[in-house]
Amino acid sequence: MKHIVALLCLFISLQSSAQKVDAETLKTIYNTSLTNGKSYEWLDHLSNQIGGRLSGSLNAERAVEYTKEELESLGLDKVWLQPVMVPRWVRGAPEFAYIETAPGKTTSVNICALGGSIATPYGGVKANLVEVKSIEDLKALGKEKIKGKIVFFNRPMQADLINTFEAYSGCVDQRYSGAIEAAKFGAAGVIVRSMNLRLDDFPHTGSMSYGDLPNSQRIPSAAISTNDAELLSGMLSLDKNIKLYFSQNCKQLKDVQSYNVIGEITGSEFPNEYIVVGGHLDSWDLGDGSHDDGAGVVQSMDVVRLLKESGIKPKRSIRVVLFMNEENGLRGGKKYAKVAKAKGENHVFALESDSGGFTPRGFTFDCSDAVFNKVLQWQPLFKPYLIHYFEKGYGGADINPLKESSKTLVLAGLRPDTQRYFDHHHASNDTFDAVNKRELELGAATMTALVYLFDKYGTSTITAEKQLKN
Amino acid sequence: MKHIVALLCLFISLQSSAQKVDAETLKTIYNTSLTNGKSYEWLDHLSNQIGGRLSGSLNAERAVEYTKEELESLGLDKVWLQPVMVPRWVRGAPEFAYIETAPGKTTSVNICALGGSIATPYGGVKANLVEVKSIEDLKALGKEKIKGKIVFFNRPMQADLINTFEAYSGCVDQRYSGAIEAAKFGAAGVIVRSMNLRLDDFPHTGSMSYGDLPNSQRIPSAAISTNDAELLSGMLSLDKNIKLYFSQNCKQLKDVQSYNVIGEITGSEFPNEYIVVGGHLDSWDLGDGSHDDGAGVVQSMDVVRLLKESGIKPKRSIRVVLFMNEENGLRGGKKYAKVAKAKGENHVFALESDSGGFTPRGFTFDCSDAVFNKVLQWQPLFKPYLIHYFEKGYGGADINPLKESSKTLVLAGLRPDTQRYFDHHHASNDTFDAVNKRELELGAATMTALVYLFDKYGTSTITAEKQLKN
Repeated sequence: MKHIVALLCLFISLQSSAQKVDAETLKTIYNTSLTNGKSYEWLDHLSNQIGGRLSGSLNAERAVEYTKEELESLGLDKVWLQPVMVPRWVRGAPEFAYIETAPGKTTSVNICALGGSIATPYGGVKANLVEVKSIEDLKALGKEKIKGKIVFFNRPMQADLINTFEAYSGCVDQRYSGAIEAAKFGAAGVIVRSMNLRLDDFPHTGSMSYGDLPNSQRIPSAAISTNDAELLSGMLSLDKNIKLYFSQNCKQLKDVQSYNVIGEITGSEFPNEYIVVGGHLDSWDLGDGSHDDGAGVVQSMDVVRLLKESGIKPKRSIRVVLFMNEENGLRGGKKYAKVAKAKGENHVFALESDSGGFTPRGFTFDCSDAVFNKVLQWQPLFKPYLIHYFEKGYGGADINPLKESSKTLVLAGLRPDTQRYFDHHHASNDTFDAVNKRELELGAATMTALVYLFDKYGTSTITAEKQLKN
Repeated sequence: MKHIVALLCLFISLQSSAQKVDAETLKTIYNTSLTNGKSYEWLDHLSNQIGGRLSGSLNAERAVEYTKEELESLGLDKVWLQPVMVPRWVRGAPEFAYIETAPGKTTSVNICALGGSIATPYGGVKANLVEVKSIEDLKALGKEKIKGKIVFFNRPMQADLINTFEAYSGCVDQRYSGAIEAAKFGAAGVIVRSMNLRLDDFPHTGSMSYGDLPNSQRIPSAAISTNDAELLSGMLSLDKNIKLYFSQNCKQLKDVQSYNVIGEITGSEFPNEYIVVGGHLDSWDLGDGSHDDGAGVVQSMDVVRLLKESGIKPKRSIRVVLFMNEENGLRGGKKYAKVAKAKGENHVFALESDSGGFTPRGFTFDCSDAVFNKVLQWQPLFKPYLIHYFEKGYGGADINPLKESSKTLVLAGLRPDTQRYFDHHHASNDTFDAVNKRELELGAATMTALVYLFDKYGTSTITAEKQLKN
């Protein structure tokens, strides 16, 4: 009995001493990020010296060069570019649109072409409108009422959802699939209410798809600002016969060569076990992509730097991966996963930051219940930093393809405060001034802390997981 | 035994049904605030139609009138003004300051007079500087090194504190007491680094005090922007003989009549038990006081409105109190408490919002452990709204004087995200555009939810408390 008690005491004392070490390490990580972080300085360059980084653009290539150089300056074990072919869509001349209530009586409205859309015919499109709230509404109307008209998708994001990403998910089908569905009924074009919870004048772009629709049947598709969506809807309720004119000359060009940017600290004990931390280097072209996803890029870069600055020598190999082309193709994420699979690389954990640079609240984990219960034990370590949100959920678009390569891979997504995110998302006001330095740095520290814990305790987690599955 | 089991089952079933009702009520409150809130519209008026509301100013009186009218429009049981005499300090003509490296070689810097400061002598002050990090540093230097010089307090807010209010508390003695301490050593004036974690060009004002110092010994005191504090410190490190010039013509005038604005829903069961929810109506004069404390004012106003809109009929009397003169005197808070005490009003709970209109994270509670444990039982109800922070702590400056009137009074403060707050606090960029509608509305809903729960369960809490004390 004495021996058991002594062993138990030893176990408890070891455990509490490990907890103490972890608490101290997290404190070092957060302090370093808040007093000696690099994320904000990097974001300043990426946003203000480079700017919007649409896949295939010169800016995207400048961002590849810049981040590669910066990673090289950190003294990592390896830094390299992973080639990937990306689509190249260009916006062309600024879009132009107005509401016409009578010949010559017009009111300008703010629109932007959706990413992937075709141009309007030379001279633009002018037509009557049909306002719908959903694709179901559209189908219920049928060809007769739609043919030759501009379909105006005007379902707002649901304001009473606390998580604004849920509100986004509940609306984005209008933007992504509105054109292909309206084209089937012979519409002349599509105008979609911007995915924005706020009433303002910024149109928000984002990807859309024509699926397999033949070129001849494709119709132009644009987003309208929420203020102008309200205006248009109000005017339509007074007079069904008003017209909308819009013109855009965007174009899909041939795929071009681009790159994922990768840096690695090679693990001291298990160099063949990989932990990935990343964000996406490309952005939309309207703003400078500070929140989406400049923030995720610089936070991920600072994870490897903060590990080094905090004197942590990872047991596993930690890779920062700056993915290309998340916004309109996901080619970078797919390519990274493909290469990892081909090489048989054992990825054990991947963490993505792609929800803005706002105050971090926690993580979502894409993993088994057994692993999640293990992860929950780390939650108290994060309490001093007001990180409270540990839930099962999606990791991230870029890391998701990695799932194919391993059944035991754990994915996680950083979850910042979401309330302001869609004020800026894919719009010209996604700019550096909307990012707060401390919020960004807290996010970088929070990611570093989780990577530190996964690296330290990873094997036992994964082993437990394997045992459960076997 | 059967009876006991049956009773137990009944008790559990009643409890879980009460929890269900509470969960539904909170959902209604949050939904109403996010889809049909008034706080943002009120703040728009207060910030953009009225503006900065320094005690004793015309704007402060306009804010009294406006909020009284708006409360009257809500159909409350009573709305009234509570007279209170307030100090009146005026900034006068814009301040002006420069660093002089040699006669005629000057660099302008951004300063603002601290609230309560005297003016500089006619023509301004020009003198050499002594840079110190603290009042202790100042005392260590002594009269000889300080006499005739401008004391430059330059201790920055501590960046590695997660709660920025802690960093503020750790620095604000320089602003509040810098002048009185420097005057004792014969300084010519005081320049204080702005209480701001960010490096930018905005000087941040705030209250300072001369204590009992005779008028003849008082010296002028101003805040300098963080960028210019860095510049000045850097230039001083190169040349101790540079001079600073500053001029300001602020003035303390006679006290004037003002008011607390009060609205009440009279309780249906316990009308003589009072619950107070409030913020302060006055603000500094540089910005429009949107975060400090326009946000708290409109959130408090919306608490009584949201209770009504959500169909809640309070058992206790709910008072919204818009306190005057928190910033430079606390006269409103003291007056309200004095009147409450004189009338023998039984205040059971008071909640203040005075930490900005950012995403709410929770509350601090100033109460006994017994009450706090009771309150903690409500915490799960807030989880769907990402409200996680329930800690013991300070309620708020305006409600604090109420403590004298009752030993069982529970005070609470709304705790929003603090990371951006001191970017705006007391500066000209504390403006409406820095407030996010949803964040503001989530705060109003969170306050309403807590008031609902305290109103519903208040007595048992207080009774338990009383029993424990007796």
